[in-house]
Amino acid sequence: MKPISFLSDFGSDDEFVGVVHGVIARVEPQLRVIDVTHGVPGGDIRAGALALLRAIQYLPEGVALAVVDPGVGTKRRAIAAETPWGYFVGPDNGLLAPAVAMVGGAEVVVSLEDERFQVPSLGGSTFDGRDVFAPAAAVLASGQANIKDLGPVLPSETITPLLLPLVETIDGGLRGEIWWIDKFGNAESNISPADLEALGHKPGDQVRIVVGSMEHHLSWVAAYGDVEPGVALLHTDSYGLISIAIREGNAAEDLSLAAGIPLEIKTPV
Amino acid sequence: MKPISFLSDFGSDDEFVGVVHGVIARVEPQLRVIDVTHGVPGGDIRAGALALLRAIQYLPEGVALAVVDPGVGTKRRAIAAETPWGYFVGPDNGLLAPAVAMVGGAEVVVSLEDERFQVPSLGGSTFDGRDVFAPAAAVLASGQANIKDLGPVLPSETITPLLLPLVETIDGGLRGEIWWIDKFGNAESNISPADLEALGHKPGDQVRIVVGSMEHHLSWVAAYGDVEPGVALLHTDSYGLISIAIREGNAAEDLSLAAGIPLEIKTPV
Amino acid sequence: MKPISFLSDFGSDDEFVGVVHGVIARVEPQLRVIDVTHGVPGGDIRAGALALLRAIQYLPEGVALAVVDPGVGTKRRAIAAETPWGYFVGPDNGLLAPAVAMVGGAEVVVSLEDERFQVPSLGGSTFDGRDVFAPAAAVLASGQANIKDLGPVLPSETITPLLLPLVETIDGGLRGEIWWIDKFGNAESNISPADLEALGHKPGDQVRIVVGSMEHHLSWVAAYGDVEPGVALLHTDSYGLISIAIREGNAAEDLSLAAGIPLEIKTPV
Repeated sequence: MKPISFLSDFGSDDEFVGVVHGVIARVEPQLRVIDVTHGVPGGDIRAGALALLRAIQYLPEGVALAVVDPGVGTKRRAIAAETPWGYFVGPDNGLLAPAVAMVGGAEVVVSLEDERFQVPSLGGSTFDGRDVFAPAAAVLASGQANIKDLGPVLPSETITPLLLPLVETIDGGLRGEIWWIDKFGNAESNISPADLEALGHKPGDQVRIVVGSMEHHLSWVAAYGDVEPGVALLHTDSYGLISIAIREGNAAEDLSLAAGIPLEIKTPV
Repeated sequence: MKPISFLSDFGSDDEFVGVVHGVIARVEPQLRVIDVTHGVPGGDIRAGALALLRAIQYLPEGVALAVVDPGVGTKRRAIAAETPWGYFVGPDNGLLAPAVAMVGGAEVVVSLEDERFQVPSLGGSTFDGRDVFAPAAAVLASGQANIKDLGPVLPSETITPLLLPLVETIDGGLRGEIWWIDKFGNAESNISPADLEALGHKPGDQVRIVVGSMEHHLSWVAAYGDVEPGVALLHTDSYGLISIAIREGNAAEDLSLAAGIPLEIKTPV
Repeated sequence: MKPISFLSDFGSDDEFVGVVHGVIARVEPQLRVIDVTHGVPGGDIRAGALALLRAIQYLPEGVALAVVDPGVGTKRRAIAAETPWGYFVGPDNGLLAPAVAMVGGAEVVVSLEDERFQVPSLGGSTFDGRDVFAPAAAVLASGQANIKDLGPVLPSETITPLLLPLVETIDGGLRGEIWWIDKFGNAESNISPADLEALGHKPGDQVRIVVGSMEHHLSWVAAYGDVEPGVALLHTDSYGLISIAIREGNAAEDLSLAAGIPLEIKTPV
């Protein structure tokens, strides 16, 4: 009996999350379900994929059930993938790919087509989270089925990848991207400390950045406590990526940061 | 030991939901609780009743604990009902009635009056979710009490019904109502596919509708994928009811839809 | 195996709560976690402390894991405290102090410094909820470690207290404070029914209050049902404190109430 870790864009206003829990409990009442988050912006595959990627190494091995599915009701595939970490279940739209790659890649991928492991829908196919993905996750977690029972095997390399922005070398520095604003207004980028060091920066340096249309000089510090309250800073965040934060403040609000905007780091003068 | 499925309008800002879980765990630590949703709009009995009605068939048999209770602190009754599905616990204000009816009706109904199965309140009776309903649900789920221990038996037919709008035949068609806007902006009505077919429509038809003060011609399709992205459509949703949606879009925003507004379907010309 | 009750200001948009659950499950899959609330306003230590204080007596004895931590990444201490109720784990910034005091005070307090019981961070120390507090709570709840294994013992009386406003006698009455607006717009104060009685009021009286800059005459009633719908009232709420409410209405909106504003109760004339 393996735990299921469940991530979606279902939000908390409707009963979608509860119904998925219900379907899982009807398959096997003893299954544990961890709600990773259901606050992914509606239909935002990239935000969901990044949240799953950040979380996966902290989740207990078992089944990752992820549903951000703007293509529900179209011909996009519904898949399950077996990896060294465990199983991933969800739409094949790029949502699963980064986390699957991080844990070592897919050994087996199947298309979820066998109706024995689906909840008969009362109408249209608009809630595959309930009707297709939840029962698949539950039978894999409980051991009631083998992944190959769930549908035809697909070539592993056909999992739809997610295109993530790369850090580029530009004239006078490098250009990356803000890819997550968290609840506290911290702005995580896709730039690593190694990227900054390759440019010639050292922890403790003042670093010149351009983000949005604004230029800032920020200290690259080890911890919030290295600056005064209210001061903006660069640091390596708890996921190992360069982030912009304000001690006891909200960097995204004060510096007008948002997911998707470019972040340039200038070479030291 | 039966699972408890818990629905309320408590939201997530306060500790109300957590305290109810706490009270249940203090009665019996092994009880499982599924949070159906706590996002019902505050005091909106009808929205809560419809969410419970949609969810009930997907929830594991056991105890449904539902609290949307604008009449707390008044003489409205607090009840538990035994049905073929299991037990329902909550205020007797119409919230439970549709789901109870759907699972076959109440066999026994009691008024929750026995203080042995209540948490002594520290003050006023403003949190019956914590003090009355949670302990009742917990003792029923754990088998520590029989439903008739909880208070005097009431005639089953005295459960307060919820008045739900009916679909009416009107000149040139029929009139129903939008009764739920989900998180993705899909608008579910109280109209069934059979109602459309009785009017003379067939799946695949263009259907003329009037909703709000606007007239639209929408295709009645089987799946989102049958129209292009951005196109509005009619379809049978995952609960078996006619809904208005926009593929990869938000129908409620774009077409100014809201719960409670009339929806007319015109007879085919 | 003891249950963990988890409160934070992490919100539901990000995967923070899910990752903490994941870390706990990786220590011991059988642990139960009750989410008390994660809706504490970001960084609001006092609001978090009051929510924990209100909830604690309804939570099953075990481990209280509380994280509202604007000082993360500074020299503020991370602590665990043993009390007659069980263990408290969190930042030593006042968040834990009122609940610890309510359950009888701390018998042992340690500074969470032993890295054997921490998750190695991938970067900066900005997510102690995941890296320090969650594993400490999990090993205490599962019995895998003794509190004194987690780090050096601190003098119990060094837990940082939270300064809570006192009710003051003023000319013509008393002055307290609104300290919580709940989801339904009810405004709880720090004033007790005994304070009102000491002024000479009796339940049932009309009471003159000043809140914000407005004066109101409200009935001090036992239950919402004692006034008509839409009428404002004073009552003892479910936590035993004097609150302002409107039957079937929202007192905070209609009377412009907010946490932190003074509330004066006038002596009867």
